[in-house]
Amino acid sequence: MSHNTFGHLFRFTTWGESHGPALGCVVDGCPAGLALTEADIQPFLDRRRPGQSRHVTQRREPDQVRILSGVFEDERTDGQVTTGAPISMMIESVDQRSKDYSDIRDTWRPGHADYTYDAKYGVRDYRGGGRSSARETAARVAAGAVARKLLGPDIAIRGALVQIGERAINRERWDWDAVHANDFFCPDAETAQLWAQDMDAIRKAGSSVGALIEVVASGVPAGWGAPVYGKLDADMASAMLSINAAKAFEIGAGLNAAALRGEDAADEMRLGPDGRPAFASNHNGGVLGGISTGQDLVMRVAIKPTSSIRIERQTLTKELAETTVSTKGRHDPCVGIRGVPVAEAMAALVLADHKLRAAALTAG
Amino acid sequence: MSHNTFGHLFRFTTWGESHGPALGCVVDGCPAGLALTEADIQPFLDRRRPGQSRHVTQRREPDQVRILSGVFEDERTDGQVTTGAPISMMIESVDQRSKDYSDIRDTWRPGHADYTYDAKYGVRDYRGGGRSSARETAARVAAGAVARKLLGPDIAIRGALVQIGERAINRERWDWDAVHANDFFCPDAETAQLWAQDMDAIRKAGSSVGALIEVVASGVPAGWGAPVYGKLDADMASAMLSINAAKAFEIGAGLNAAALRGEDAADEMRLGPDGRPAFASNHNGGVLGGISTGQDLVMRVAIKPTSSIRIERQTLTKELAETTVSTKGRHDPCVGIRGVPVAEAMAALVLADHKLRAAALTAG
Amino acid sequence: MSHNTFGHLFRFTTWGESHGPALGCVVDGCPAGLALTEADIQPFLDRRRPGQSRHVTQRREPDQVRILSGVFEDERTDGQVTTGAPISMMIESVDQRSKDYSDIRDTWRPGHADYTYDAKYGVRDYRGGGRSSARETAARVAAGAVARKLLGPDIAIRGALVQIGERAINRERWDWDAVHANDFFCPDAETAQLWAQDMDAIRKAGSSVGALIEVVASGVPAGWGAPVYGKLDADMASAMLSINAAKAFEIGAGLNAAALRGEDAADEMRLGPDGRPAFASNHNGGVLGGISTGQDLVMRVAIKPTSSIRIERQTLTKELAETTVSTKGRHDPCVGIRGVPVAEAMAALVLADHKLRAAALTAG
Amino acid sequence: MSHNTFGHLFRFTTWGESHGPALGCVVDGCPAGLALTEADIQPFLDRRRPGQSRHVTQRREPDQVRILSGVFEDERTDGQVTTGAPISMMIESVDQRSKDYSDIRDTWRPGHADYTYDAKYGVRDYRGGGRSSARETAARVAAGAVARKLLGPDIAIRGALVQIGERAINRERWDWDAVHANDFFCPDAETAQLWAQDMDAIRKAGSSVGALIEVVASGVPAGWGAPVYGKLDADMASAMLSINAAKAFEIGAGLNAAALRGEDAADEMRLGPDGRPAFASNHNGGVLGGISTGQDLVMRVAIKPTSSIRIERQTLTKELAETTVSTKGRHDPCVGIRGVPVAEAMAALVLADHKLRAAALTAG
Repeated sequence: MSHNTFGHLFRFTTWGESHGPALGCVVDGCPAGLALTEADIQPFLDRRRPGQSRHVTQRREPDQVRILSGVFEDERTDGQVTTGAPISMMIESVDQRSKDYSDIRDTWRPGHADYTYDAKYGVRDYRGGGRSSARETAARVAAGAVARKLLGPDIAIRGALVQIGERAINRERWDWDAVHANDFFCPDAETAQLWAQDMDAIRKAGSSVGALIEVVASGVPAGWGAPVYGKLDADMASAMLSINAAKAFEIGAGLNAAALRGEDAADEMRLGPDGRPAFASNHNGGVLGGISTGQDLVMRVAIKPTSSIRIERQTLTKELAETTVSTKGRHDPCVGIRGVPVAEAMAALVLADHKLRAAALTAG
Repeated sequence: MSHNTFGHLFRFTTWGESHGPALGCVVDGCPAGLALTEADIQPFLDRRRPGQSRHVTQRREPDQVRILSGVFEDERTDGQVTTGAPISMMIESVDQRSKDYSDIRDTWRPGHADYTYDAKYGVRDYRGGGRSSARETAARVAAGAVARKLLGPDIAIRGALVQIGERAINRERWDWDAVHANDFFCPDAETAQLWAQDMDAIRKAGSSVGALIEVVASGVPAGWGAPVYGKLDADMASAMLSINAAKAFEIGAGLNAAALRGEDAADEMRLGPDGRPAFASNHNGGVLGGISTGQDLVMRVAIKPTSSIRIERQTLTKELAETTVSTKGRHDPCVGIRGVPVAEAMAALVLADHKLRAAALTAG
Repeated sequence: MSHNTFGHLFRFTTWGESHGPALGCVVDGCPAGLALTEADIQPFLDRRRPGQSRHVTQRREPDQVRILSGVFEDERTDGQVTTGAPISMMIESVDQRSKDYSDIRDTWRPGHADYTYDAKYGVRDYRGGGRSSARETAARVAAGAVARKLLGPDIAIRGALVQIGERAINRERWDWDAVHANDFFCPDAETAQLWAQDMDAIRKAGSSVGALIEVVASGVPAGWGAPVYGKLDADMASAMLSINAAKAFEIGAGLNAAALRGEDAADEMRLGPDGRPAFASNHNGGVLGGISTGQDLVMRVAIKPTSSIRIERQTLTKELAETTVSTKGRHDPCVGIRGVPVAEAMAALVLADHKLRAAALTAG
Repeated sequence: MSHNTFGHLFRFTTWGESHGPALGCVVDGCPAGLALTEADIQPFLDRRRPGQSRHVTQRREPDQVRILSGVFEDERTDGQVTTGAPISMMIESVDQRSKDYSDIRDTWRPGHADYTYDAKYGVRDYRGGGRSSARETAARVAAGAVARKLLGPDIAIRGALVQIGERAINRERWDWDAVHANDFFCPDAETAQLWAQDMDAIRKAGSSVGALIEVVASGVPAGWGAPVYGKLDADMASAMLSINAAKAFEIGAGLNAAALRGEDAADEMRLGPDGRPAFASNHNGGVLGGISTGQDLVMRVAIKPTSSIRIERQTLTKELAETTVSTKGRHDPCVGIRGVPVAEAMAALVLADHKLRAAALTAG
């Protein structure tokens, strides 16, 4: 049952609320013998950390991870390795600014999970969104860093933001290095500059905006995935839709596949220069019949605008009185930006699980 | 582990290959006491049955379902009800036309799972696509009919085709009754006529075309779903991407959410005429934070064009020799058409599972 | 969720009632490329088939298995192999003797699941016990035969009956060949003769009797199992207690472990003649910390007497009227006898699952 | 997949090693609205805490639990309640006595999981047994306390020690109050005194001894459990065998069921004084066909002697050199004693899971 756990063989469980004392995750099923220290994880957390530019939330959380179990000294390497036991990781909260939450305690913010949590549970930790806060994704990023260790250096998982609002990048200018050189994980330096202007205006207006994330996984061997209900792309879809504010998932041609003709959509095969199968195109995004082809996995996730905006909106109180709400505070005006490392982490976690699942079948 | 099983509390396992003696499914976790006979299931199978118009495959399969277990006479109603035991359903194959499969035995059809199955398993039932054939979806439709019985008459799950190739319907002409009155499950009678012309040309050209399916679930109460990794929309995404040839999933505003501003995306709330919360819009497609709002669930699935086309394409043989392939036979030129009842079934199956999951929490 | 499914990576789902048209199972997760035909499965079903001696039920069921999916011709061997797709197996019922079931329809048989099924489901297929009938175990035996193919010839799983009623075997006379030479799977030919006399008396008295099954698995490598909640012995305990009428599970010293001192219970280690670790004893039954040691797995399961007896017992009707019941019909007077191949099958199924789970960890 | 997670709907995941900085668990699936503070949990931890008498390990661990997530203020009650979010609980380690572990780092202790962990993982946290230490059971006890809250006051789960070594209690003197009045959770005050003498001698000899735990769950309604592979007793067997050093599980008549006749084993039914079904005996231990009868669940678990003893035993080093080992340190001479609250906790956890599973079926 997937409440707060994701994955089958390589699996993780997250816990913690936005304004609780700490949050964390337990990674279970990680094979023994992988070199792993906090220094392997922290850089990924640093990438999604709040407060790094004026375009994201100004909350100040160091998001320092601590490994509490599952690793031990390795006498062979003199380093620290996984032991096969569950890896518990914890991030303590620091910036729990004392605040008056009486507004959102009693009023449902439109677009937020306030109403649905109340409908389901009858009680809700309203401070900063509680369990439904995007802060939970810090735990995913920590787990994703462990997944990357399992996947090894031959599999590269890279994410980028390809659209903010109505402005998309120019794909001809795609440069993976650019992703690290601007505040938006944008692979197109020119568009990044325009986005900075767009974002300033949006922030000033007290509004927010949606975005489109693209994740590319390279080096995945052919044969990962499973038929029918364990399809690699179905698991990716589930992983990506589990990210806060995600509203759509595409792989390969994605939505545009509906518009294609058969002769255009099928990726023709030739013999590659390395004597292995090569494909003339990648409309299928690296997956056929739920199983990887060896091509790049190319996926996109649409993230809706942050629902916490200063612009006043109509809503209800818990007592069903009509009112309006305007959310102050330190919110990401485009939650899609910091969603990039989260989407990367989810892709890594799905692949780590399927790496183990594929290995299991070698036992035959 | 989800290989050939879907769902947690209400779950089903499918089995069978396209040209095997039979295919079927086992539905497990269905509560006892639901009236259920083959007559409840057959109409749904009839809707996806091949050979019903010139626009779909001409294979002639009656797809007659037989319930082998899990039901028993009910002395109270004099009818037949579920007993809580697993419901095994079987559909025997009839039209296994004797055929020479030597082509596709040795040659990988581009866009098909031929190559990936060989890469994963090293052996493949090549007759009609074997396990990766869309014929497997008959079993889902049978399971989905049981799910509908559990959901009851207050929850309506309806699907429609809203785009074939580059031609989309005109949403202002949407008429659910029209869906039953044309060969395309099209809610716009005018567009259906144009599609008929389009399809004739595509079929004549030996080509195929993609499509976009929309599924709407009405009557789902607020509070179904689960947080974080068991989100209702994440489960729907997984369900829809498990359908053959699916390449994208959207809920609510979907991909377009990336382009929106916060004040437009958040669905404002008012008090409805029935004294219950009402929403001014449905950009979130009936789900907030992974939990249903009580609004309609509105989802779309993009289906790529059938990969089996008469137009010659470049490919490889299993021995890695370069060759071309042109697929003859009785294939759907637009597999998205018969995908409509399948997508409906998957939606019903996800909802049935979440109905039970929601009931479990009442135990507290 | 384990309702009617067992296992994680190698998993099977059974379906069918005692007097339904058929019963069967779906084996999912079996690796591709294993030679498998019905002839590999039938011998195991023949061992548990009813009607083979006067000491078991006289119902006449050929229990002929049919494989409906998951296998295909293998051009390399000219034989038939598994394809990695789910293996559906079906056994049609033949001897559904027309009978008046009005007795057990309305009356709960003590010791049977009649009352608890009514309490849980409110409806019950009373014919021959329905879903709770030991007939379901035929499907387990079929699945177990597939598991044995995966385990390969180096792992031997053998069962024997070591006690009927108060008469236990003499372990000094243990002879595995004897198991195949009497009607009781008894490894002690002398005791088997005494059991035959005991059983004649019991049958004549219209009574029944309990039994103790021992299963030994040899050739299991060290390192299978999982820590804490996936322990190999915990999974075996669950598997064995899932067998109808099972009331206890032991591994190694079992219950007697409570009486031991530490210096006696710990199995000392020495270097074996093959240069590998060897153990001076096997009080732990081949498992330490949930993980296999490489020694024989030695397990016992206690099976209670058949609850269907001719001797009159006090009970209630469904309407809570006090009455008595005496069960006529063709029942096993000692259900433990035919439980031996079932317990073997369950052991094989657990091991097959753990073989795949162990292989998954090699991916690290 | 059950590596370090137990349960389906009500589930928990434990983490932590004996000598790591902390250990803990995440309870997932707990319904919202249950009153829960650390004060509800601590008393159960105190019962299994080390150092409470001379008969258990002298390690000094306060085992103070801290709830990190999943609870929130409840405005209706002014108390703190569960929110439906995962409940993370942590126990920090205090008494990590600096010690030279070079002995057990290189030498496998007979009866311990040292060898099997090395065989499986190739690396092992040898300090105090690492992950295989009984210290992990503190996390189960914490989770079990939450399970009890879900079960409510009408279900009582009580454990007792009924045998140490060869000395069993006199059941005619059974007194539940006595359980709280001696160092052994012994329901027979006279036997407790003899055990104290036995234990002194055993401890003095540097030996250890096995024990038999009995757990009784009262107030479980009829109808909990599931057929075939989710049987309530099979889940209990799995739960109990997951406890460190457990070698056998019995329910009702248990092993003795093998010796019974049908007329003795079947529990006859009569109408009880409350107008509900009553049973004349309880040979089935409260479960028929995997489903609860409403009677007491009566179960026993055999615990082998602690493998850490001062008496010298033969063994191997990791380099396969023959040697001997004698384990010093602060070990429980009878690990079964502190196993009593652990076995209670596991019973509560299984029942909590089945309570939710039973509730799910009411949705039909």
